Amino acid sequence: MGSDPNFRPVALTSGEPAGIGPDLCLMLASRELSSRFVVLGDPDVLAARAKQLGLRVEQRIWSPPARLEPRPAGVLDVLPVRASAPVVPGRLDSANAAYVLEMLREAVELCTSGACSALVTAPVQKSVIAESGVPFSGHTELLAELTGAELPVMLLAGPKLRVALLTTHLPLRGVPDAITGDRIERTVAVVHRDLSARFRIAQPRILVLGLNPHAGEGGTLGTEERDVIAPAIRRLAERGYRVLGPVSADTAFTPVSLARCDVVLAMYHDQGLPVLKASSFGEIVNVTLGLPIVRTSVDHGTALDLAGTGLARVESLGAALRLADELVRRSRSEPLEAADAGGAR
Amino acid sequence: MGSDPNFRPVALTSGEPAGIGPDLCLMLASRELSSRFVVLGDPDVLAARAKQLGLRVEQRIWSPPARLEPRPAGVLDVLPVRASAPVVPGRLDSANAAYVLEMLREAVELCTSGACSALVTAPVQKSVIAESGVPFSGHTELLAELTGAELPVMLLAGPKLRVALLTTHLPLRGVPDAITGDRIERTVAVVHRDLSARFRIAQPRILVLGLNPHAGEGGTLGTEERDVIAPAIRRLAERGYRVLGPVSADTAFTPVSLARCDVVLAMYHDQGLPVLKASSFGEIVNVTLGLPIVRTSVDHGTALDLAGTGLARVESLGAALRLADELVRRSRSEPLEAADAGGAR
Repeated sequence: MGSDPNFRPVALTSGEPAGIGPDLCLMLASRELSSRFVVLGDPDVLAARAKQLGLRVEQRIWSPPARLEPRPAGVLDVLPVRASAPVVPGRLDSANAAYVLEMLREAVELCTSGACSALVTAPVQKSVIAESGVPFSGHTELLAELTGAELPVMLLAGPKLRVALLTTHLPLRGVPDAITGDRIERTVAVVHRDLSARFRIAQPRILVLGLNPHAGEGGTLGTEERDVIAPAIRRLAERGYRVLGPVSADTAFTPVSLARCDVVLAMYHDQGLPVLKASSFGEIVNVTLGLPIVRTSVDHGTALDLAGTGLARVESLGAALRLADELVRRSRSEPLEAADAGGAR
Repeated sequence: MGSDPNFRPVALTSGEPAGIGPDLCLMLASRELSSRFVVLGDPDVLAARAKQLGLRVEQRIWSPPARLEPRPAGVLDVLPVRASAPVVPGRLDSANAAYVLEMLREAVELCTSGACSALVTAPVQKSVIAESGVPFSGHTELLAELTGAELPVMLLAGPKLRVALLTTHLPLRGVPDAITGDRIERTVAVVHRDLSARFRIAQPRILVLGLNPHAGEGGTLGTEERDVIAPAIRRLAERGYRVLGPVSADTAFTPVSLARCDVVLAMYHDQGLPVLKASSFGEIVNVTLGLPIVRTSVDHGTALDLAGTGLARVESLGAALRLADELVRRSRSEPLEAADAGGAR
């Protein structure tokens, strides 16, 4: 990719400064050398954290439209964003919420302006941003707002399985009423569009789960399948989407079942994610579908207790970066390649 | 075990006659030769199904208190229960609901009287029993009624993982209100008792899941963890139970997490079973805890379309039979063995 004149770097936000985000960015300095990315963060915070971790990292300051040179091991390209308050690993400070948000705003601007190719995010701490007085319910919602996206959809991609969620961080009690035909249709449309355009899967096959045990067992264990989910699937099929379901969650993830789909659409968080994380923890990448930009992120939190210790695991961030590269590369390829069936990323 | 004078056979009910139950029982004739079991069912139905499957099976009629002789391949020990109506594979007939229930009643009687050691059940069709006018919500509930058990608990045991369910076949909408402190305490007590007495795990470690995504994330994604689940866990810990939680379902099933428990207690069906079936479909055994008898069963349904075709898979019934044997053997062993940690059955 180094010889590609169109190549633009990935924007990587270093996230909550008291968490492991800065650690992970620094750990990347000697990894993922074939990937071009620029870290958004405070150079002083990064330098202090590197010292604490015993890592020798040379920071190269970058700003667009400069060309990003190939990166030797030990070098990190940084686009400076200044922290508002001193940073102590493990200690949250709402004074730095503005810093965390500023990194995200700048990164989105870099992507939408075309200076960067994609956004990868290290974890943020929702509670400390909310405490600072800024209404904030998560990366996904903010990114949708910043980019004007109508319906962001959370997709978790592991080496063997992709799971999209119809509802995400909602108390279980609120899930049944959030399952509407309109939501299912719009979500399937987003999943279809991004798996086609970004993952380059021709005619992606979408397996839709039921809401109730045994997908309602003919209405005896719940009526949402009969009244809401099945009719939405029928309408989608009539519109040409390759949708199957509603199927029972407990048999949907067997090898025989997965062989017939490219993605599973789960109705809620704990229906879809345990099986994914059980099989591939640390290798899973969170992808936000439905945005005008490519965005991936790690599948873990800020791990405040690990910040500065050297115990954080960089694998998930590495995988997020590689998948972002891959999606950018595929998005540029024309025409649509043949189906990438079977569930590989 | 053939030389053990205390040895009593396992009672195996052949289940819905139009389903694959008779097929599976017949397929066992040349398998599981070290296991002594007696099939409850109609010898004519079994003979007709054997003919259809092209299986040569010799039926030996058994009734207590006769000694059960070692069984050569191709022989099946049968305790006759007569069907009420002609049986056609794949065609449900509510006239045979009484037959299905009679097998279960006789099998329970054989176990409680001491003539048989344990109960293993082939699948039944709930709907056809209900149609016949008998209120019937499943094997588990009927067995609890027949044995006077207060709180039956469904446990699914796979080669690498055991999952117990706090609620089972309940529409998702009804789950949050069914999660009560009392139910959690009583269920943990049953799980503890049976894992100790039957599985012979000293001081079993029970990992309790939360109800909401991220186990409520400190109350921001639901309050049941804070108000109901965590207090129940505290009370249980004070009473000496080894309980951990509430933990987030999406990280509970990673290898690191599972290494610290003998069983996971899920709040509901689709939170616990997808991960189990994804990893070990066809090898999973359903065990009913909280009964005065040992009872295991297959982890699949009647598969009406496969009855008589020879395509049914007997692995799950074989595993159910072996686990029943094993639980009977362990229940008799004294004193309690050291902890059987790490999740092996």
